[in-house]
Amino acid sequence: MMNGENETCRMSFITRHLYLMSNKTQPARGMRDFLPADVRKREYVIGVIKEVYQSYGFEPLETPSVENLETLMGKYGEEGNQLIFKILKRGEKLGQELAEGKIKSENQLADLALRYDLTVPLARVVANYKNELPKFFKRYQIQPVWRADRPARGRYREFYQCDVDAIGSSSMLVEAELISAVSEILQRLGFKDFVVRINHRELLAQIVKNAGISDEKSTDALVALDKLDKIGIEGVEKELLQREIGESEAKLFVNTFKGFQELEKDCESRNQNGFDAFNSAFLNRWEENFKEKEAEDLKVVSDLRKLISLCEKTSAGNHLKIDPSLARGLSYYTGAIFEINVPDLAGSLGGGGRYDGLIGMFGKEQIPACGFSLGLERILVVMDERGMFPPELQTNAADAMVTVWSEESAGESLKLAGELRRKGLRVLVYPEADKLGKQFKYAAQINVPFVCVLGESELAENKVTLKNMRTGEQETVARDEVADKIKL
Amino acid sequence: MMNGENETCRMSFITRHLYLMSNKTQPARGMRDFLPADVRKREYVIGVIKEVYQSYGFEPLETPSVENLETLMGKYGEEGNQLIFKILKRGEKLGQELAEGKIKSENQLADLALRYDLTVPLARVVANYKNELPKFFKRYQIQPVWRADRPARGRYREFYQCDVDAIGSSSMLVEAELISAVSEILQRLGFKDFVVRINHRELLAQIVKNAGISDEKSTDALVALDKLDKIGIEGVEKELLQREIGESEAKLFVNTFKGFQELEKDCESRNQNGFDAFNSAFLNRWEENFKEKEAEDLKVVSDLRKLISLCEKTSAGNHLKIDPSLARGLSYYTGAIFEINVPDLAGSLGGGGRYDGLIGMFGKEQIPACGFSLGLERILVVMDERGMFPPELQTNAADAMVTVWSEESAGESLKLAGELRRKGLRVLVYPEADKLGKQFKYAAQINVPFVCVLGESELAENKVTLKNMRTGEQETVARDEVADKIKL
Repeated sequence: MMNGENETCRMSFITRHLYLMSNKTQPARGMRDFLPADVRKREYVIGVIKEVYQSYGFEPLETPSVENLETLMGKYGEEGNQLIFKILKRGEKLGQELAEGKIKSENQLADLALRYDLTVPLARVVANYKNELPKFFKRYQIQPVWRADRPARGRYREFYQCDVDAIGSSSMLVEAELISAVSEILQRLGFKDFVVRINHRELLAQIVKNAGISDEKSTDALVALDKLDKIGIEGVEKELLQREIGESEAKLFVNTFKGFQELEKDCESRNQNGFDAFNSAFLNRWEENFKEKEAEDLKVVSDLRKLISLCEKTSAGNHLKIDPSLARGLSYYTGAIFEINVPDLAGSLGGGGRYDGLIGMFGKEQIPACGFSLGLERILVVMDERGMFPPELQTNAADAMVTVWSEESAGESLKLAGELRRKGLRVLVYPEADKLGKQFKYAAQINVPFVCVLGESELAENKVTLKNMRTGEQETVARDEVADKIKL
Repeated sequence: MMNGENETCRMSFITRHLYLMSNKTQPARGMRDFLPADVRKREYVIGVIKEVYQSYGFEPLETPSVENLETLMGKYGEEGNQLIFKILKRGEKLGQELAEGKIKSENQLADLALRYDLTVPLARVVANYKNELPKFFKRYQIQPVWRADRPARGRYREFYQCDVDAIGSSSMLVEAELISAVSEILQRLGFKDFVVRINHRELLAQIVKNAGISDEKSTDALVALDKLDKIGIEGVEKELLQREIGESEAKLFVNTFKGFQELEKDCESRNQNGFDAFNSAFLNRWEENFKEKEAEDLKVVSDLRKLISLCEKTSAGNHLKIDPSLARGLSYYTGAIFEINVPDLAGSLGGGGRYDGLIGMFGKEQIPACGFSLGLERILVVMDERGMFPPELQTNAADAMVTVWSEESAGESLKLAGELRRKGLRVLVYPEADKLGKQFKYAAQINVPFVCVLGESELAENKVTLKNMRTGEQETVARDEVADKIKL
């Protein structure tokens, strides 16, 4: 018994020790290491994103990971303030103040913070370099951001944001170009079944107003509406009541959306080019409603018509679908809003919209702006699940490995590797003059498709024995033909 | 007078306000925003570095910007500990403890920290994924690191490190491949006049021992030697004495290097292929010295001979120069060390060496390793000063701009832009149906080389009026010929 207890103790000590050991070498909570295979996939997607944005004339911007705390505080609401990673002040003064008990609150401890999103830094840059930047500043920015959120499946504390924004114009052309660029990215990555849902804040405002919901309760109504996908139309109605919106207003509000849902069902069979039947039926009905009201209220209809028509001849084309229930959580949007979905993902692949009030936050002018943020991490998840990465994406370290015959001939192995690299191949040299069998075994382990053996006879004859690791075939070829054989 | 004073007050208020305003929108102290032109240069250099490393079979690794504080603390010495940016703990508990005066030292405040270098994260990764990584793990990593250093010209608090390391082999082939890869990068970037100085820790140890300097004073001697470039040989001697090394030992120590300097002068005229005459004269002399001593002491000579011979047939070739005074500050090196210099830069473009004791820090085994770190920021500075960026490096947002004739024809402008993009051009669409003169003015401001005008007559005839903004020439061409005209 005694012995048994000891054994248990020892086991749990070892288990605990192993746990601590492994914990010590793991990345920090909610953060990730990217091993080579991960990095290659990420860089492939980021490469496509950059290429398309550049082809649209968007320019790259990078800002520091660390911002002054005052730059970020108060910009993301109370919840955001809590999620900002703050950086401890440095120097002896802090230690002294602590020792003397002079520090009573967190605000005295931090002066810097980790970037929380890419929009506030953009606003800061626009204010700081306004004389250097073009009038219409089109920039993309692909950098990590940090949030002290509780980590969960698919939710990380460090993750990349891929933002694209066009600053300086209120024209609907901007929306059209953004939607078109994002659609082109998804198409190049191999997505065919994505839907770009579009809506307009003004349209939502009119629906709220029509239902007789007061201005003060407008946000409550939209927050409830935002959950439509999750809780259904009855759920929305319930939540409206919970949020102290009157019964008749709530009924009117949800009935509007019920009407749209019916209209959508009606149109389904008539949709020929994407969602064209529904899109025009919806806009026509809206126009009908307003026939006898203010012309101003109809601007949103003409805006959405214009957007759809502008997109028609672009990559966005038939992916566009008006979704009057799309609310998008962020309250800073002022005009068109959009969100991209695919059937096999609960969330969205990205979203954006017009936000004319935000970019000017560090200055005095209001600066029109419209942007889109692609969800890199989600795109990667869906592409992985669907097996969408191109087969030619490099999954191994090299196209060929050169063996080392002896300490004396090692220089020749390096030289051969150099020759092959100059012909565009990625070439590994086995680092030691090991037994040949061991070198082959290693090549198989790391999945290199070709091994070049440079032995005594090969060196004497200026040849190379080339082994195809997939087929097992082996042939001795002239040294200057090796690269071509590998590329075949 | 009163009035005057008021005026001064107001002025200083305004000045101060402007100062605060501009301060508010500046990046945090010691950090930098990279506007598009900067990003393009950085990405060009990073692209070359990645391409060459990949061609050598090095694989990409990325680790989080944030590490657990305990992972970093104590790894960089006392000075390093001070320079680590620490991240404040989160949650209500901290606020409560502060309010109650329970927190007396910084250690209770932070749990995370910003990455300080790329070597400790590599060691952590090697320990954490040892079953997933190949036996010989060759990785490159290009990511920012953060140090709470006092900012100065060329010294930033956020800067990129470009590290390449080969883990798992003690063979000199590893050193040769690293030096060769780094040399190839510099050559591809256009550097011709770089020198790869090489030395060996063992050789330094022997010089120290020969001079009769005790083991305890060895580090002092090397720290003094490290300053040779800055303070000259007399300065080194002085510092040795200050560091309480005996007069005769100091004399012997510096005389050794005086001897090497004379030897170098002797060889200068005989150096035919790089520094070959000096390299072999030096190694021969060293061998002479040890003829009657332990054979073991001669291993360093044969190691350096091997390294030079291995590099002979690679890109490093005639750039290699033995520099027996090269000490490199970091004490963790255990074998060969190297550093790359160009004449017009006081510091080095990069450096590295073998460090067999470090990578195993999170485990129990000692793991051989050799690495090189390129100084991206310095490379950029020298390339900028020398005008080394290729003329074809994109310096503007687009190859062409398409004008917008009217609200109605805007869709046609988007369509034309799409056609040109599909032919590989970067194309901007002016976002608004402005006056044509204004659109041309904007194109000139942002330095776009071609403007495509799509007016009423052009649209009717399926043509485009193409203006070359450099020459001012203008011609009307068929729509499907526009791209070719621009590419010419």
